Amino acid sequence: MRLKAIIQYDGTNFSGYQIQPNGRTVQGKLEAVLAKMHKGEHIRVTASGRTDQGVHAVGQTIHFDTSLTIPVANWLKALNTMLPDDIEVKDIAEASADFHARFDVREKEYRYVILNTNERDLFKRHYCHHVPQPLQLERMQQAAKYLVGTHDFSSFCAANNNVKGDKIRTITGISIEQDAANQIIIKVRGTGFLYNMVRIITGTLLEVGLGDREPENVEEIISSLDRSKAGKTAPPQGLYLWDVDYY
Amino acid sequence: MRLKAIIQYDGTNFSGYQIQPNGRTVQGKLEAVLAKMHKGEHIRVTASGRTDQGVHAVGQTIHFDTSLTIPVANWLKALNTMLPDDIEVKDIAEASADFHARFDVREKEYRYVILNTNERDLFKRHYCHHVPQPLQLERMQQAAKYLVGTHDFSSFCAANNNVKGDKIRTITGISIEQDAANQIIIKVRGTGFLYNMVRIITGTLLEVGLGDREPENVEEIISSLDRSKAGKTAPPQGLYLWDVDYY
Repeated sequence: MRLKAIIQYDGTNFSGYQIQPNGRTVQGKLEAVLAKMHKGEHIRVTASGRTDQGVHAVGQTIHFDTSLTIPVANWLKALNTMLPDDIEVKDIAEASADFHARFDVREKEYRYVILNTNERDLFKRHYCHHVPQPLQLERMQQAAKYLVGTHDFSSFCAANNNVKGDKIRTITGISIEQDAANQIIIKVRGTGFLYNMVRIITGTLLEVGLGDREPENVEEIISSLDRSKAGKTAPPQGLYLWDVDYY
Repeated sequence: MRLKAIIQYDGTNFSGYQIQPNGRTVQGKLEAVLAKMHKGEHIRVTASGRTDQGVHAVGQTIHFDTSLTIPVANWLKALNTMLPDDIEVKDIAEASADFHARFDVREKEYRYVILNTNERDLFKRHYCHHVPQPLQLERMQQAAKYLVGTHDFSSFCAANNNVKGDKIRTITGISIEQDAANQIIIKVRGTGFLYNMVRIITGTLLEVGLGDREPENVEEIISSLDRSKAGKTAPPQGLYLWDVDYY
């Protein structure tokens, strides 16, 4: 039986999603709990994609296969009881035998949270990126328009990437809004993302918002296909994998 | 020269404020940084009072004496550069030679944050106490009225306390309000507090808010002078030492 689960995690104390020999990882914790439930058998967990060290997830989606015959309704409680308190399974259900958490993704949403206040907030240090200088929202919104659509996003892909094949991706929408707590939330939806793409987009939009670049500059950055033309990679703690939609 | 500083800290990764042989403490970190600045000399830091493991501070106040001749304006930057990122000095200034961070306290404010939503919030788990059942604010507000004033608060003091002298304290005000994020904030101001007093008050008010006790019951709890008559001690992560006023 194949199960599909939606999970949340606080990325602060993880060396990222993907399992690795040394380092506390989300996948590692999930597979350790599943091994316990399956009397030591290794159960491979497949996610919609990785997230880096310090990056959070509100709607990461995973699948795995199980031979256990416990009712689906009991899975949620069993997993949440055994998982550490910085991972939580929000929903779990039976999926079709050919459902694949990575290959069947239709669209993903990432959110990036910027705290745009004079003073930093100690209690939010792991959950947003603090920018003390005032950001001009309208400039950022103008710049974002150039990114929407299907483009070769080579300029917005980490230089040390492992991307096989082309770097053409489709961003279906970007919205940038300020909330009541002086947080600027950048929401980026797309059918696929390159390594560090949202963080480089954010870093570039921040430079536009600070007045260091013109909004139109983004068009040139895209067509240059040159990572060094884009802005700095924004830090991980502001980034959330928010939602994954499937076909 | 005596310096007075207002400090914030995230209590999550501290074994409380007070220095101890094994365990990461706020006082330990402060004194280690000051020892470095004073070429190994031990500089004793005195706070307005201790906070327990997991309890936060937004306006803790400390004093210490120094023989260093660096301008006061440079202290803030020096300390914040050397302190870990879960302690922050918000303000530092010269105080009179007889200022005492503990003995000169006029009033303190504590705040207790309850997240009153159906679902827990993974990202706030260290910063509030999650209560999934609906709380009746008016009942809690009614109950709180009995606590305001000068009383023997023996019923609201941890049984394993080290309190010398009487347990008569004065609460000058309690307010209980709900914010836009479904957080209920209990603000308690008083001239002095017993060990775990705010957490036991909160635990008792929660039982009133859930309908398990009547608001008038608080009057009986106070006059019983019996810890076992009051509610459970609310967990530490919802508590903030918010502000300390001095004469």
